[in-house]
Amino acid sequence: MPRNKKSPSNEILLGIDLGGTKILAGAFDSSIRLLGSAKRPTLREVGPDGVTARIVETVTEALQTAGRSLHEVTGVGIGAPGPLDPDTGVVLTTPNLGWENFPLAAKLSEALGKPVFLDNDVKLAALGETRHGAAVGANSVVALWVGTGIGGGVLVGGRLVHGAGKNAAELGHMVVKANGPRCGCGVRGHLEALASRSSIERDLREAVAWGTKSRLERLVKKNKTRQIRSSELYRAYEKGDDLTRRLIHRAARYIGIGVGNMLNILSPERVVLGGGIFEAFGEDLLERIKTSARKNSFDVAFDACEIVIAKLGEEAGVIGAAELAKDKLGERRNAGR
Amino acid sequence: MPRNKKSPSNEILLGIDLGGTKILAGAFDSSIRLLGSAKRPTLREVGPDGVTARIVETVTEALQTAGRSLHEVTGVGIGAPGPLDPDTGVVLTTPNLGWENFPLAAKLSEALGKPVFLDNDVKLAALGETRHGAAVGANSVVALWVGTGIGGGVLVGGRLVHGAGKNAAELGHMVVKANGPRCGCGVRGHLEALASRSSIERDLREAVAWGTKSRLERLVKKNKTRQIRSSELYRAYEKGDDLTRRLIHRAARYIGIGVGNMLNILSPERVVLGGGIFEAFGEDLLERIKTSARKNSFDVAFDACEIVIAKLGEEAGVIGAAELAKDKLGERRNAGR
Repeated sequence: MPRNKKSPSNEILLGIDLGGTKILAGAFDSSIRLLGSAKRPTLREVGPDGVTARIVETVTEALQTAGRSLHEVTGVGIGAPGPLDPDTGVVLTTPNLGWENFPLAAKLSEALGKPVFLDNDVKLAALGETRHGAAVGANSVVALWVGTGIGGGVLVGGRLVHGAGKNAAELGHMVVKANGPRCGCGVRGHLEALASRSSIERDLREAVAWGTKSRLERLVKKNKTRQIRSSELYRAYEKGDDLTRRLIHRAARYIGIGVGNMLNILSPERVVLGGGIFEAFGEDLLERIKTSARKNSFDVAFDACEIVIAKLGEEAGVIGAAELAKDKLGERRNAGR
Repeated sequence: MPRNKKSPSNEILLGIDLGGTKILAGAFDSSIRLLGSAKRPTLREVGPDGVTARIVETVTEALQTAGRSLHEVTGVGIGAPGPLDPDTGVVLTTPNLGWENFPLAAKLSEALGKPVFLDNDVKLAALGETRHGAAVGANSVVALWVGTGIGGGVLVGGRLVHGAGKNAAELGHMVVKANGPRCGCGVRGHLEALASRSSIERDLREAVAWGTKSRLERLVKKNKTRQIRSSELYRAYEKGDDLTRRLIHRAARYIGIGVGNMLNILSPERVVLGGGIFEAFGEDLLERIKTSARKNSFDVAFDACEIVIAKLGEEAGVIGAAELAKDKLGERRNAGR
């Protein structure tokens, strides 16, 4: 039997997750098993071309760790914060990176000499969790990623939904409290303005300024600008800090409202909760979120859905990015038949 | 060439829309052209078997009007208020009809001697508008039906989304104002509690009770129980009644918030607005709704979407029901190959 040259079994796929603070890269075999990985600070101040060079360094290190070479790489997937154009590989505007209309896929493809495919970071994390993590076996998935902001990913029929504007699943930007607090995007009452780490920090700082006692008081007063990390919130929460507990529980209630909305809108098989807050809090908020989701949605949708915490941690994005590369190369091969 | 016996060109499909107040039926050819129709009051007090008999009378009349006979009918589609199970054809619970676990498809199939397929009434209206009305040519569609309640239909990749619980797209039951007014389903702040005809009526009655002047005052005071019709609201609105205008404009703002949420969540190509309110108000509220949707969503999603008023009026549901029957018969034929 002739060896299938079109899909070499020793092909290597690269997955990259580009964030505002760090770059993660992984080298994968064709079954998307991780062979080696690397991590670097993004250093956004070096600008888009500088960051692209840092991405190349990071993937080079990941390949070295895996004991493989760039010659074996057939394709590269990369996730970046949106909005972006997955078809042209252009990052449109990214407050997190300070970029505007940067052709990331083309630039990286030029640097590596390989095809590069771009998609939204949270969408790729959702894809990673669906293929290898907490949503394996589910066809319809809603992923809600709660960190500094709130992002999302939606799969229907096993496929990511991008929509006509190519940037669907901005689940943090659904109004859940009309006339509520203002979101970073300017709109009042978006979920992100009520349940993200930064919204919790906003209210914590305000309460402390008004004299409310908290274990985080010193941290808040010492650092006017540095963010309070999810892990710091968790430590105060665990130790019973009253203010932190109240704010976290309120956030959990709103996350449950967001999940409840998605249950009534799409009735997915699985809802996956991930991102910085859940990396820090693990399963601790799950029952609270489920209680709020149940209260705000129909039983018929709630009962048909499993609500779970993400399994892959910060690797979800690179795994999803490698899956993207695999899918896109597969589509190209099929189209070339 | 042998004639294709499996898909006879003279086949007749029946589409039925079962509502709380009326039954609509249509007889269609295989291209889903309407050949004849009929309409009867539902008379829900006669109970599920009695209503089934009335449905049979209505389709019989529709066939007579079309000059066709039941022998030519190959399949029947029927839309009913949810929640229901489209796979088993059972209406689970319907406050509108007062039914519980009624096997409507099986009962109607027995009565007519034809295969009968059941789905949610608003989903079928969305399908009708997508195949023949305001959303022709669009692959991803969000339909929002605003009447006494608020229902929805979502198509992704040209197909209705039912989800794991089989009752997705309950767009009236998304929280847009946490802690807001209570919805008929018991949850606070659902869109239906802020923008449906019944929520407008609730606030109109309350304002009048508190002494606010309105052209609808006499109607409100005379009829404590009869609903105020959408057409009556429109008449007062058109004549400049201040209270009605304020309430309708507030509803439009909330409908825009709901649409904005769907833009950020699914980024559809087309949003279709239908139901009693839009049958009465036509395009009059469209600009207001667009303004609110634009304000609450990302440009990338808003700019990629057309927001339009439904075209097919009360026929959308029967047309969609006939399309359902056609699709399901096609699937059976393909499965039988």
